[in-house]
Amino acid sequence: MSANLLVESPEKVLGELRKIVGEDWAVNASDKIQSYLYDQTEPLLRPEASGSCVVAKPANPQEISEILKYANREKLSVAVRGGGTGVVAGAIPTVPSIILSIERLNKVVELDEKDLMITLESGATLSTLLETLKKSRLFFPVHPGDEGAQIGGMVAENAGGTRAVKHGIMRNHVKALEVVLPTGEIVTFGGKLLKNNMGLDLLNLMIGSEGVLGVITKVTLRLYARSSHTGTLLVSFDNYDDATNAVPDILQEGITPLAVEYVDRIVSEKSAQQLGTTWPCTKGSVDLMFIVEEPTEDLLYSNSEKIVSICEKHHAVDSIVADSEKEQRRLLEIRSNAYGPYKDNIADIMDAAVPPSALPQFFDEVNALAKKYGRQIVSLGHIGDGNIHNFILGDNGKLPEHYEELKQEIYRVAIKHGGTVTAEHGTGKLRKKHMSLQFPQRQIELMKGIKKVFDPNGILSPGNVFD
Amino acid sequence: MSANLLVESPEKVLGELRKIVGEDWAVNASDKIQSYLYDQTEPLLRPEASGSCVVAKPANPQEISEILKYANREKLSVAVRGGGTGVVAGAIPTVPSIILSIERLNKVVELDEKDLMITLESGATLSTLLETLKKSRLFFPVHPGDEGAQIGGMVAENAGGTRAVKHGIMRNHVKALEVVLPTGEIVTFGGKLLKNNMGLDLLNLMIGSEGVLGVITKVTLRLYARSSHTGTLLVSFDNYDDATNAVPDILQEGITPLAVEYVDRIVSEKSAQQLGTTWPCTKGSVDLMFIVEEPTEDLLYSNSEKIVSICEKHHAVDSIVADSEKEQRRLLEIRSNAYGPYKDNIADIMDAAVPPSALPQFFDEVNALAKKYGRQIVSLGHIGDGNIHNFILGDNGKLPEHYEELKQEIYRVAIKHGGTVTAEHGTGKLRKKHMSLQFPQRQIELMKGIKKVFDPNGILSPGNVFD
Repeated sequence: MSANLLVESPEKVLGELRKIVGEDWAVNASDKIQSYLYDQTEPLLRPEASGSCVVAKPANPQEISEILKYANREKLSVAVRGGGTGVVAGAIPTVPSIILSIERLNKVVELDEKDLMITLESGATLSTLLETLKKSRLFFPVHPGDEGAQIGGMVAENAGGTRAVKHGIMRNHVKALEVVLPTGEIVTFGGKLLKNNMGLDLLNLMIGSEGVLGVITKVTLRLYARSSHTGTLLVSFDNYDDATNAVPDILQEGITPLAVEYVDRIVSEKSAQQLGTTWPCTKGSVDLMFIVEEPTEDLLYSNSEKIVSICEKHHAVDSIVADSEKEQRRLLEIRSNAYGPYKDNIADIMDAAVPPSALPQFFDEVNALAKKYGRQIVSLGHIGDGNIHNFILGDNGKLPEHYEELKQEIYRVAIKHGGTVTAEHGTGKLRKKHMSLQFPQRQIELMKGIKKVFDPNGILSPGNVFD
Repeated sequence: MSANLLVESPEKVLGELRKIVGEDWAVNASDKIQSYLYDQTEPLLRPEASGSCVVAKPANPQEISEILKYANREKLSVAVRGGGTGVVAGAIPTVPSIILSIERLNKVVELDEKDLMITLESGATLSTLLETLKKSRLFFPVHPGDEGAQIGGMVAENAGGTRAVKHGIMRNHVKALEVVLPTGEIVTFGGKLLKNNMGLDLLNLMIGSEGVLGVITKVTLRLYARSSHTGTLLVSFDNYDDATNAVPDILQEGITPLAVEYVDRIVSEKSAQQLGTTWPCTKGSVDLMFIVEEPTEDLLYSNSEKIVSICEKHHAVDSIVADSEKEQRRLLEIRSNAYGPYKDNIADIMDAAVPPSALPQFFDEVNALAKKYGRQIVSLGHIGDGNIHNFILGDNGKLPEHYEELKQEIYRVAIKHGGTVTAEHGTGKLRKKHMSLQFPQRQIELMKGIKKVFDPNGILSPGNVFD
């Protein structure tokens, strides 16, 4: 990638971009671009952003198309930027780049209640989506945590979150995408369709493609009727073995909770303390948090009882039912703040997943590694999906000694059990160097070949997914 | 594709294949290969199979790999053949080919109840899958009709069927695939994982790829707990307008039936007659068949009542509840036989889908086209998915005059309403020539570029999807 023009004649690039987006919507003054250079990647891990960047804020797909055509002509890198809520450095431009911010494409295009679909511009945030649906009987299930996430970014990263056990991930709900291809064409993949078998499936290829195959400009999502009866259960166990073994029995019984979260007790206690409240569980050392959502109150109660009874067969030592809305909110807030107490001294948040049946061994082996390397590792995560976030803690604000080895050994454990290095956070610039642990060379070649088909000059989001 | 060796020295190819699969498992005698030349494509439409074919029946992925490497060296076409239940000529070798039959890879590899997954060799049939699950509490939802379909074929065609409204299509349940790439490498895409964001998603690219990107040899499917309370409702209407408008209201109410089938009355009556029984509805002229499946009997009754009441708001003229298992089976059998009475004089079965809200216009315009071309068109289909099968009838066993124009006009109507030419049957060799109606040129180029990345010599399933 030639960076010449952005380094040597930044004002020329700025001028060309201003011709496309208008005087006010392209900037390169360092105070104006500062907030576009980083995302929520852990500070100890994030790569350095290039100083030679210009931020362009196009108003529509046509302007994006013009920018990409210009970038192809001049062989300039284009880094696509959504809400900046990613954690794998996907939005950090590590080479001189035109930063393409999607922020102005932020409108709700259509709430189509009859087809149970909503179409949004890709820069609309999750918060905008949720606000729009308040007026409706319909519901969108995926919630990765931060409501500042843009819908396009959620598609590009194939966001997951706590509700995947019942409702799946972004991939399950995205029905159509408008995309500006790296070569400038504006195309639509998919439609308001539940079945569509014409040609190869490019829609799913775009989901989770992390900005390397095209710029998503419009997203159509499937919506669902809202279930109005919700309860939260906390069940305590003496160890992760019992806790993990209870979950498949619950699913086989035909009960699919909205969420099944595993949390090390110490994490919940610290989180509660930081919020000035207390975690209600005292017996045992780990907890499962079930959010149960059912179409009737009867079913909510009977399924909650069944969950507790199955957990008791797996040696649960205590259970607490929260049925008031206030208490449910309090518990969820403690869970959502799990990261809070560790924030200032975290090295890396692992995002591995393994088949749920392998979780007990996965925990065993990760804990053995923690011991081997003398590091504290705390764990929480979406146990119903086999997706566990292990926090590798820092060493007084620095990366710990042997961080790299420890991380790679955790990856190897996940892969050995048929798992993945990254379940929901994405590959970005952080995890790509471990791709060869998970995939044979030919598989990586296929991915690179596809990238080349879409983006022959390699201008789009360079450094993401591939080197 | 050079066909030289298969035409000029078929015995040489046979000999090479026998070295790989053993003497008994490669044949080219015309009586031995006859049953491998066609699938269930309508006889009036099916292309002619090449006479210069050799059938190879490998025992495992390694042998398939050897065959593909040999075919690459000699630039021979390889036509992948599953259960032969497809209807778009996907399994018909129109050029001299090695027909690669997957029939010997027919074993259930593992029923993993703890992870709610099953792994099968790709040549195992749907019937084998269903039989295996009888011993379990678990359930696999997709059912395209013919239980002779092989699981690998169901993946390659991304099969749909009547239950998609509640449970989705194959794509929603396939978690891992073992694939022999056209270049001979044996790879695995995905895993027993509900979340997996490493690299680009090749798993979904393979689903629905119709044999052009690789040979699927093993399939891991997600399973679900069985719902034990099932009922069938028939609701009659005077016209398709009222019938189609009722469905979104039901879905928005939070009721998702297992199936919502639309059937022209005349079709159900003819089908019942052919089976020597009677269709119970007499009022109105079209029927909706709802199969309702709920976790409790209470919910089954209350949701069935709600469905009828919503239909009545949409001017339903009659409703019939079948709660005995015997009567439910009888009605389903009549629905499943819909094709029977037309079998001998059918020209083509359309497989378009449109957004459900566009169904009334779609019906209007298709009926206007029937009138314009003086053809009878009967309709039935998966109305909850917007997927309607219009039967274009033949002219005393011949393709009717203006068949091509009529068909293309129906496609154009579907596309105009944001729909697709093929919702569940696939592109194959029949629908590919209409790809440019649905996609712009650059989109087709992307697909062809991906094909080239996977299969540089274009040996695999030539003629499917692409020319």
